[in-house]
Amino acid sequence: MSKIAFWYDFASTYSYLSAMRIEALAASHKVHVSYHPFLLGPIFKAQGLDTSPFVVNPAKGHYMVRDIERISASRGLPFHMPEPFPAHSLNAARIGMVAVTEGWIAPFTKAIFAAEFADRADIAAQDVLDRVVADLGHDPARVTAAASTPESKMALREATATAGQIGIFGAPTFIAPDGELFWGDDRLEQALAWAKNSAQKPVA
Amino acid sequence: MSKIAFWYDFASTYSYLSAMRIEALAASHKVHVSYHPFLLGPIFKAQGLDTSPFVVNPAKGHYMVRDIERISASRGLPFHMPEPFPAHSLNAARIGMVAVTEGWIAPFTKAIFAAEFADRADIAAQDVLDRVVADLGHDPARVTAAASTPESKMALREATATAGQIGIFGAPTFIAPDGELFWGDDRLEQALAWAKNSAQKPVA
Repeated sequence: MSKIAFWYDFASTYSYLSAMRIEALAASHKVHVSYHPFLLGPIFKAQGLDTSPFVVNPAKGHYMVRDIERISASRGLPFHMPEPFPAHSLNAARIGMVAVTEGWIAPFTKAIFAAEFADRADIAAQDVLDRVVADLGHDPARVTAAASTPESKMALREATATAGQIGIFGAPTFIAPDGELFWGDDRLEQALAWAKNSAQKPVA
Repeated sequence: MSKIAFWYDFASTYSYLSAMRIEALAASHKVHVSYHPFLLGPIFKAQGLDTSPFVVNPAKGHYMVRDIERISASRGLPFHMPEPFPAHSLNAARIGMVAVTEGWIAPFTKAIFAAEFADRADIAAQDVLDRVVADLGHDPARVTAAASTPESKMALREATATAGQIGIFGAPTFIAPDGELFWGDDRLEQALAWAKNSAQKPVA
């Protein structure tokens, strides 16, 4: 079976679009998805930006909201812009490191994005995170403790550093096993087709 | 018949992708295309950038080339990055103002983009511009003179100012008659569908 790596920040609007459809779409392509939460903040900082490009450039930010409204509507997805934007995604990403290790990152990712962009919840708030974790059948106190260990913090720093090293400059990004990089929800189909074709090539 | 406004800079790689397909695609949607050359330079300057975002952000620039290579290949289009990038598109854009007035902007646009991205020509060079204009059946000396008038220069400045005023922050941009804005070659189908649907709505 072929695979695709899905890199995202929990505050990213276009990552929301992908998170809500990647599982079903990848399954229909017979492609396995690995989940890679990271932080866009340090990536943007290395580009000389203090915040999201959608905040730095208001015309682009205004367009982004409208673009996502149109796409969400066409897919029957709710969409509300978080206030403030971008949301503070550090706490969710640290729990994401625990969820990767323990094997529940796929449903956690979907639940966090739905809380943020469909249910207007603040994903920086402890009670919101606790509810999401509890709804997935895990003990919020245990998970919060695990997410606060030096190991979890280091895992997130390393994921973000790796993202920068492999050429990631935004989210969502999809990476095929041969290293081919695709940026943006609108490249997801192309990324899945690439991953499938590259897996079918005979190894020389 | 519905219509769509196509806004582009002759130096823009993604505008090349759209320029080579918009005529046929719009015709199949029964949508009329109006051509709006403008300059991205002043738009980027207003965003605080001295040059293309693809130069400011090398990781993004590297990805853009690969993205266009993949898309071009899938469409059977040649694609070479101009050296230097972005090309100096001022002269071509001024001729574009003449071509808009005289009704040959559609073939001129396609010919300039093909010269630049398929034939590796320097679209800032007078001999290249002369050849493109002559191949379209016009007198290069006359056209060069018309493109150098204060009226042509003013028309280009006004087009660029209008682009900024209506929320354009990059190219290509497509604008439907109701003002709906779509950015990027990957939104062209959506823009055409929008233009067609909005034209079919009864006027209240």
